[in-house]
Amino acid sequence: MCDACTMNRVATTLGRRGVFAAAAAGATLLGLASRPAGAQIRATPISRVVDLTHTLRVDFPTFDGAPAFQMEQAMAFARDGYNVNKFTYFEHAGTHFDSPFHFSANGATVDRIPVESLVCPLVVIDVRQQAANAADYQLTPEDIARHEASHGRIPAGACVAMNSGWDARASGAGFRNLDGNVMRFPGFRPDTVPVLTERNVAGVAVDTLSLDHGPSSTFGFHTGWLGSGHWGIECVANLGALPPVGATLVAGAPKIAGATGGHGRVIALA
Amino acid sequence: MCDACTMNRVATTLGRRGVFAAAAAGATLLGLASRPAGAQIRATPISRVVDLTHTLRVDFPTFDGAPAFQMEQAMAFARDGYNVNKFTYFEHAGTHFDSPFHFSANGATVDRIPVESLVCPLVVIDVRQQAANAADYQLTPEDIARHEASHGRIPAGACVAMNSGWDARASGAGFRNLDGNVMRFPGFRPDTVPVLTERNVAGVAVDTLSLDHGPSSTFGFHTGWLGSGHWGIECVANLGALPPVGATLVAGAPKIAGATGGHGRVIALA
Repeated sequence: MCDACTMNRVATTLGRRGVFAAAAAGATLLGLASRPAGAQIRATPISRVVDLTHTLRVDFPTFDGAPAFQMEQAMAFARDGYNVNKFTYFEHAGTHFDSPFHFSANGATVDRIPVESLVCPLVVIDVRQQAANAADYQLTPEDIARHEASHGRIPAGACVAMNSGWDARASGAGFRNLDGNVMRFPGFRPDTVPVLTERNVAGVAVDTLSLDHGPSSTFGFHTGWLGSGHWGIECVANLGALPPVGATLVAGAPKIAGATGGHGRVIALA
Repeated sequence: MCDACTMNRVATTLGRRGVFAAAAAGATLLGLASRPAGAQIRATPISRVVDLTHTLRVDFPTFDGAPAFQMEQAMAFARDGYNVNKFTYFEHAGTHFDSPFHFSANGATVDRIPVESLVCPLVVIDVRQQAANAADYQLTPEDIARHEASHGRIPAGACVAMNSGWDARASGAGFRNLDGNVMRFPGFRPDTVPVLTERNVAGVAVDTLSLDHGPSSTFGFHTGWLGSGHWGIECVANLGALPPVGATLVAGAPKIAGATGGHGRVIALA
């Protein structure tokens, strides 16, 4: 949820649920939850690398439908002896990070997210069936409870990822999935914020264009989650290649002073 | 070695050494060396995260001394309900990647570097003393041999990093270290290319502004190394916090179609 030509005055239209979630989670404001001090980051061997990053192209789908990323050639090998391009883009393009500052007045900018919180257990919650039944499905506290009943409690410092299967649509119009003027894609329901906060989760990831589901105009999850000092990743790929628990995420957030987020490499180790 | 306002016509001034190295390494052209198939990526537990990434600021030093990175506010929380910025920058700013395509006509662009090669053993060669004695020191085949004599043969698929101690200078003029019109900082000597290639190394990293040392005008290492299908990272930080061998690099190269490189998060697991 990000592009620069839409969503003006979100704050003035915040739903009651979003405001409540932000207040409930306020205790951790700027705290940027991470794993317990001294705990081992990963005890088991790594045998597989899974790339959770879509290739960012000029025509990669964006939240508002307008191109967000441009690249022009500045130096050419045949002429200059080497190739260099110049990028121009709004921070929230392709597979990208949302820092707390994206939806708060004083939250941490992306460079200030502690690196320790970016290497963490990855929990993948499968809502592919729900999303197949309802394109604008919202991941609920019940989905989290169901996941925990099968796979154990979400560990402190984890990243919780929503696998809606939406990554398969990233090359076409089905990613935004317009229904009239309303987008229909899945996201986190705002009342998951206190549940995730209670588990001391560090970040969340979605395989869609927004942490909130497509029809949201109040962005209650963004406000509650980012506004309480946590991070998010949008437009991740390949979650289906990972187990529900057991992988380690290395979330390559860009380290740019003052930025609200940006494209970064997202890699899972399994 | 990167900015867009210098270094025109590098190809026409290539030294004999650079051309030789490129030819010698030609057998792996576009091969993008990685670890042997089926090998475990890391067998031992991970207990520490080390951030090898400098914070990219508008005033971060650049190869040619001109600003390479700009950021402007597009949306403001107080006015719009959320914060978003717009970036404009040449790819090679801050801690950043060089893909094979940066110094070749047809080499892999940064998005096409196999992700498996970006998660690899990290070998840190300490040349801090040599660099203290000669600011424009070049890491030699003898430095590699000395490292191997103490720490074992460089494993296939590794990233070999030069620790010159230069990361401590990154906030000031000492990073470019101008001596008249010539920069004095350390880099890899072009005749290390065949040595690294023989070990099937995947990538290299330097804590300075260029894979080649500051005075180079022929860019023999760039041409030989990138031109033979390998990748590099420039301006890394904190190599001194790592052991000579045993850490695992997660090199968060941006995944941007057609790009020659770009800023990315570089993380070591130890």
